[in-house]
Amino acid sequence: MSGSVSPLAPAAIADLPPIAGVRLAVADTGETYAARTDLMLALFDAPASVAGVFTTSQTASAPVELCREHLKGGMARAIIVNAGNANAFTGKRGESATAEVVRMLAEHIGCDERQVFAASTGVIGQPLDAAAITRHLTDLTARAGDAGFLDAARAIMTTDTFPKLAAATARLNGEVVRINGIAKGSGMIAPDMATMLGFLFTDAALPPEVLQPLLEEAVADTFNCITVDGDTSTSDTVLLCATGRGTAATDAADPALADFRAALHDVCLNLAHQIVRDGEGARKFVTITVSGAAHDAAAKRIAMSIANSPLVKTAIAGEDANWGRIVMAVGKAGEQADRDRLCIDIGGVRVATNGEADPDYREERVQPHMRGREIDIAVDVGVGTGRATVYTCDLTCRYIEINADYRS
Amino acid sequence: MSGSVSPLAPAAIADLPPIAGVRLAVADTGETYAARTDLMLALFDAPASVAGVFTTSQTASAPVELCREHLKGGMARAIIVNAGNANAFTGKRGESATAEVVRMLAEHIGCDERQVFAASTGVIGQPLDAAAITRHLTDLTARAGDAGFLDAARAIMTTDTFPKLAAATARLNGEVVRINGIAKGSGMIAPDMATMLGFLFTDAALPPEVLQPLLEEAVADTFNCITVDGDTSTSDTVLLCATGRGTAATDAADPALADFRAALHDVCLNLAHQIVRDGEGARKFVTITVSGAAHDAAAKRIAMSIANSPLVKTAIAGEDANWGRIVMAVGKAGEQADRDRLCIDIGGVRVATNGEADPDYREERVQPHMRGREIDIAVDVGVGTGRATVYTCDLTCRYIEINADYRS
Repeated sequence: MSGSVSPLAPAAIADLPPIAGVRLAVADTGETYAARTDLMLALFDAPASVAGVFTTSQTASAPVELCREHLKGGMARAIIVNAGNANAFTGKRGESATAEVVRMLAEHIGCDERQVFAASTGVIGQPLDAAAITRHLTDLTARAGDAGFLDAARAIMTTDTFPKLAAATARLNGEVVRINGIAKGSGMIAPDMATMLGFLFTDAALPPEVLQPLLEEAVADTFNCITVDGDTSTSDTVLLCATGRGTAATDAADPALADFRAALHDVCLNLAHQIVRDGEGARKFVTITVSGAAHDAAAKRIAMSIANSPLVKTAIAGEDANWGRIVMAVGKAGEQADRDRLCIDIGGVRVATNGEADPDYREERVQPHMRGREIDIAVDVGVGTGRATVYTCDLTCRYIEINADYRS
Repeated sequence: MSGSVSPLAPAAIADLPPIAGVRLAVADTGETYAARTDLMLALFDAPASVAGVFTTSQTASAPVELCREHLKGGMARAIIVNAGNANAFTGKRGESATAEVVRMLAEHIGCDERQVFAASTGVIGQPLDAAAITRHLTDLTARAGDAGFLDAARAIMTTDTFPKLAAATARLNGEVVRINGIAKGSGMIAPDMATMLGFLFTDAALPPEVLQPLLEEAVADTFNCITVDGDTSTSDTVLLCATGRGTAATDAADPALADFRAALHDVCLNLAHQIVRDGEGARKFVTITVSGAAHDAAAKRIAMSIANSPLVKTAIAGEDANWGRIVMAVGKAGEQADRDRLCIDIGGVRVATNGEADPDYREERVQPHMRGREIDIAVDVGVGTGRATVYTCDLTCRYIEINADYRS
């Protein structure tokens, strides 16, 4: 793992101001990474509204199951996150370990256990030692407020080569509210040491029943539209907590939420892009837009089929505008496409029109684009008005080196 | 293209005797590969029964569309196959080129056009010059019978590193019948120069309405249970032709077909395995069996999810018995699985039991297996009796090198 920062990393790390009502602390358990923090606590001064979305995996980790359960209460006093051990596929012992951490943290805070949320990321299948975390709880709660968002973003990293932060402000009922977000992940993937986690905090005053649909909507075309290798973690978790007092809106459809909705989308998209930019072995950031599909979901499936095709991804790594492979990936998606109306643009250059190579297409015209860091592919499949955009990276030998872990 | 023979190639190439009623010829068009045959004709002395299965791609090639149409007639006098140009995504011109080849071949033979079948494999999106093929038809038909099955298998290769042949005999109504098969493909994939083609010939006397269900059944758990990278060609085609006179059975459910059915399955499985063994960059042949699924189709989807997971495949390349990644791949398959009853065996060694690491598991116990050429993974997902076996290979840097085609 380790090593140098991804060449696709943002030029600067976002500087996030505090959010009223949120106090952060980090610690080094000494259990996982050498000389690095690997434990993060977010403590809320008062119960915060909370919304969450989780992996669709059938083999979800113990913390994911716990969060799903606690989310029913809609309120959070704390989130505890450890990096280095995913506590996934650890059976009943894994469930007990997470339950123990949460129970003890609730005791320290003096709150209902259901107001404590947990996330774990790291190795799958290794029993989690609850004591390695619980022995830090007194200290962490005492120091809550000492750490900033950058410290928190660093403490949840695993194979990440840079911390991921994003922020925005929005007008809500005449006031300016903030949204801060941190995330980790080298893809929507589950190598030994990766998973996607995202934690969003806002000082807006929004009840859980408003936050939840807003978060689901924001995640749908941001975190759920990225892929590094099509592999889905057992632990993917995104939580959104709102600390504001009162109630700025009682319905997610309230037009007053327009600006907040847009800001939340921006923060999620920014973090989602950063995860792709830290994709294992990634050298190019790829945006794939599919239009003309039967419906939006069909467009997304076609776009994901292109984004996950090893042949498309290796061609991009090779700076080869191999549009035949894009046709193949459209064809295998299992969604309606009109072969004789299919059009493909790469970097704004029309390469294929109505089912065959464009008569004006010359490979030299897309070569400068293919040599760049940002690759844009647009495909119109010619059957309807469905549309979707997804984000991925190229597939390089470095991905294989990182994941093959040659031992011989 | 080049290079050395796959380390997973069979020790010996099968030696196939002739099949009564089938005459083969090959030619070098000079259009594609240097000093290599790239055109194959199979001519039947009399109309043979024919069955076919094709790619499910929505962007199927012109020859696939033609075969689907001609299959309705159920009889074949000839199959013409060219390697080097897939004639896929070539629009109306592509359709015309295939139609022209087929029309002229029918003229040469003096048969109905609908009794001529065609397949093309190679580059996608490049117009096919019909004349490059038709100028050889006089010669090919005159020489029909000169070539053997090995010549035919060589003439249809693209990125294949070895020709793929398999044969079997079966008892049918007291007589011994033969089944010969040839195939090409470096995966169920569509790089510039690959696709899966299979041509099976038998001297059994079976009408098309019996052949078709037999072929579909045989393909279901052989050719349709292999994957190299999950990418599906626009041109995948398997044809089965029967030259025997009379009618040995009128119903595919006839118990008299038991031996033939088994032999057909063996030939298909043998060829399917050879395709995986020639997977681009493959160093290990991987068999994945999933049991305990809700039903067989669910088992196959879970098995394919494991087989197509880049993280599982890179772990195998690295000789790492990383069962956490297998859990992840089970979880993302979208099929029912009981996390707390999941069991995993690698090379016959139990690594995970009832949702956690097996208490007796020591990594040293599977290391000798992981270092071998043949890797066996068995997963029980603990919910039902559904079962499936699929075959794949590891994912190595060589795959990326082959497909990235670095130009810079």
